[in-house]
Amino acid sequence: MKRHLISAADLSRDDALLVLDTAEELARVADRPIKKLPTLRGRTVVNLFFEDSTRTRISFEAAAKRLSADVINFSAKGSSVSKGESLKDTALTLEAMGADAVVIRHHDSGAPHRLATSGWIGGCVVNAGDGTHEHPTQALLDALTLRRRLVGGRDRGLGADLAGRRITIVGDILHSRVARSNVRLLTTLGAEVTVVGPPTLLPVGVERWPCAVDYDLDAVLAKSDAVMMLRVQRERMNDAFFPTEREYARRYGLHGARMARMPEHAVVMHPGPMNRGMEITAEVADSPRCTAVEQVSGGVSVRMAVLYLLLGGSEPAVGTRTTEENSQA
Amino acid sequence: MKRHLISAADLSRDDALLVLDTAEELARVADRPIKKLPTLRGRTVVNLFFEDSTRTRISFEAAAKRLSADVINFSAKGSSVSKGESLKDTALTLEAMGADAVVIRHHDSGAPHRLATSGWIGGCVVNAGDGTHEHPTQALLDALTLRRRLVGGRDRGLGADLAGRRITIVGDILHSRVARSNVRLLTTLGAEVTVVGPPTLLPVGVERWPCAVDYDLDAVLAKSDAVMMLRVQRERMNDAFFPTEREYARRYGLHGARMARMPEHAVVMHPGPMNRGMEITAEVADSPRCTAVEQVSGGVSVRMAVLYLLLGGSEPAVGTRTTEENSQA
Amino acid sequence: MKRHLISAADLSRDDALLVLDTAEELARVADRPIKKLPTLRGRTVVNLFFEDSTRTRISFEAAAKRLSADVINFSAKGSSVSKGESLKDTALTLEAMGADAVVIRHHDSGAPHRLATSGWIGGCVVNAGDGTHEHPTQALLDALTLRRRLVGGRDRGLGADLAGRRITIVGDILHSRVARSNVRLLTTLGAEVTVVGPPTLLPVGVERWPCAVDYDLDAVLAKSDAVMMLRVQRERMNDAFFPTEREYARRYGLHGARMARMPEHAVVMHPGPMNRGMEITAEVADSPRCTAVEQVSGGVSVRMAVLYLLLGGSEPAVGTRTTEENSQA
Repeated sequence: MKRHLISAADLSRDDALLVLDTAEELARVADRPIKKLPTLRGRTVVNLFFEDSTRTRISFEAAAKRLSADVINFSAKGSSVSKGESLKDTALTLEAMGADAVVIRHHDSGAPHRLATSGWIGGCVVNAGDGTHEHPTQALLDALTLRRRLVGGRDRGLGADLAGRRITIVGDILHSRVARSNVRLLTTLGAEVTVVGPPTLLPVGVERWPCAVDYDLDAVLAKSDAVMMLRVQRERMNDAFFPTEREYARRYGLHGARMARMPEHAVVMHPGPMNRGMEITAEVADSPRCTAVEQVSGGVSVRMAVLYLLLGGSEPAVGTRTTEENSQA
Repeated sequence: MKRHLISAADLSRDDALLVLDTAEELARVADRPIKKLPTLRGRTVVNLFFEDSTRTRISFEAAAKRLSADVINFSAKGSSVSKGESLKDTALTLEAMGADAVVIRHHDSGAPHRLATSGWIGGCVVNAGDGTHEHPTQALLDALTLRRRLVGGRDRGLGADLAGRRITIVGDILHSRVARSNVRLLTTLGAEVTVVGPPTLLPVGVERWPCAVDYDLDAVLAKSDAVMMLRVQRERMNDAFFPTEREYARRYGLHGARMARMPEHAVVMHPGPMNRGMEITAEVADSPRCTAVEQVSGGVSVRMAVLYLLLGGSEPAVGTRTTEENSQA
Repeated sequence: MKRHLISAADLSRDDALLVLDTAEELARVADRPIKKLPTLRGRTVVNLFFEDSTRTRISFEAAAKRLSADVINFSAKGSSVSKGESLKDTALTLEAMGADAVVIRHHDSGAPHRLATSGWIGGCVVNAGDGTHEHPTQALLDALTLRRRLVGGRDRGLGADLAGRRITIVGDILHSRVARSNVRLLTTLGAEVTVVGPPTLLPVGVERWPCAVDYDLDAVLAKSDAVMMLRVQRERMNDAFFPTEREYARRYGLHGARMARMPEHAVVMHPGPMNRGMEITAEVADSPRCTAVEQVSGGVSVRMAVLYLLLGGSEPAVGTRTTEENSQA
């Protein structure tokens, strides 16, 4: 594996499977009496968030703490960053303080790449979402969830990819880093991906992406093993795109009748937080076919796996003893 | 004990005494060289705060860390919650991330109850103050303080309740969750409670509360073993209630001359933060009869006890060995 | 050593050398596989920040965590402090919660002194910057950096002071707590200090400081072993001081040509965050002579040393075993 995780394109099929299999191994720690491993003790993980994202931040925080790392939260708001400090100076500061990993969320596409390739930082960089570019750990947790639901349970899925599974991603593809990372990762894992959305919300050049493009949700539902509903980011839409929100919901929202056209085994995914009534109805969101909650849960395991693999913990990912047992040994 | 702590009414007399006695046991940890117990290692406590309350948040944080739990602070400000995410989706997210306990502060009366009874969450829920409803750990720390001052020291009080002690609660009863929780808990523990305040700041139906009601502070002071001065929440008052703040202070504030009318052994309580010069003068606040600081200190012990009892730590609350000693064994 | 660290004047030459030598010892922990010591396990360090300062806060946080202390961040924003709670009541609250050390950043000069001398707090107080008064750990990290660069590496410098080294501090001396602390500490350590700035930005009475005063940067550069460029705090300047920012940069900024007048061994320091193009050009900031990053790194070590020495850890600063090794013993 590369030393940083900036884009889903950084992951070969083998890398991706290593992350997923390690995540499954680490997920079992949650079943132990002491849900904690000493693997990253003494390592410092900095959550460097230039954008608010409580959900992503606490997922990485929980993952790092479960591996016994120290976590420092650095919100750019109110910091010297907001007074104009450059990303470079922030990076050099974190490096000098001994950060072993920097998890970065940034409004600018490309900021994590700059951080990783600049030489400013000796530790590893994990992209936790940058602008409209990528969000690779989101794609990994989606892949984990898909494998569990479509290939086999936690155990039977080990080592397997998503060959031949048909995944449909629906909504504002243009602004979605989740879509970009998923198209890359899911195709790496052998899935057949289709993106669906109104023409104004598909990026220029989408025809060169390694996926099919469609404008008609109803047409593709029947041949989808999973449909991933993207969050509508109203603040990014302008009135030109749609006459009304109701019109969006009518054409691209997932409601019960539409879900009924999907194959019986097919699942509904959502990266959260959901706009109930907009891209997804409450009925669908609360149905057992919706995996939103499992995705969150898989997120902690996947982020544990990424931190573990990048930081090269000083112990096997999961030994036979927990922190507690070690202490008492 | 129930699995959640939402209201002081959740606690039977035996439950309450168990919390208080456990708190006394845990308070002794502060006297050790290593003021930390391994009891909740590997457990995750989430502080889910929809209202700012630094004092309450750090009290729970200190309590959880002293038991070796991992603590994740989730402030709803700037999170997707402020973008309209439902309490349900927030709850499901925390559950999926493996929260063992959620400490919730919310501006809406009833939000913690909804969280606890919804089935969204498998862990336990602790109400850290909801609207004008309840704040049960505040009542527990008040009870601990009262027992120490009125019944016996830390050791002699063990097992004792507050039978026959006369407690007067003064001020804006209408909006006070502290008052509501205390009336319930203190009467459960056998105390005789009187609430005092201007008629406009007493709730409709207060005559059905298990306490006496009075409007004349001077009249009840002489027969009080403790008087609890509530914080005046100016933002909740409107001009109709009082002509002036001075008028409030004159009739319901506690000053030195008024305190002198109390029995010699009687104490003055305040949940903090105090409006010195408003409901309490600096002279009273700084007198040795004022227990405000002891209440804060008891707060950490009581919250340790609540977290310990709800989470059912994997070890006795206080073993003979500390974290440090365990590690070196 | 005194029990608190409020001013660089609290440190005798021996105290200062003890901090620096301890910092060097602790810096070596970063070279170990597990970069963590069990020294302050069970101790609670509160970061009480009345002013935003992410850099200083995370430096103290990293230092405390590397010594295994529990860290609680208390930002005064949005807390009851912002609703008018007095410093006294905040202090009594932290004391009651069992804070072993309070690291305080405050906009009022003198607030940390009040906290330390009031008797409100039993733990130790560390000034992390107060108004225009002092920032003693900044001076300590500057001294550490100077000793490493001018006297000897990490090992050869042990026990040495800065006798005879000529340090020039440049800029807004009037408002700079960094300048005040450095003038005190560096002269205590035997250095010869010169402050340089426009007359309007030098404090009244500067001629009684234990340093030389000059107005002409170019004149002193050639005889400086180090030049410390202060951050221009534009919000504190008014138009009377300078016609333009360009004028400031021209007369008091450090650019390549100016740096070339310095002796070959001389270094450039900056407390960060830098205003590139204002008090320092990018060329100088990025030159190997600029120690800004080393200063940050030394900051963590110095703060570890201060916390260790003030809190009197229960173990030698650096034993032969790390946390990890202890746990497995």
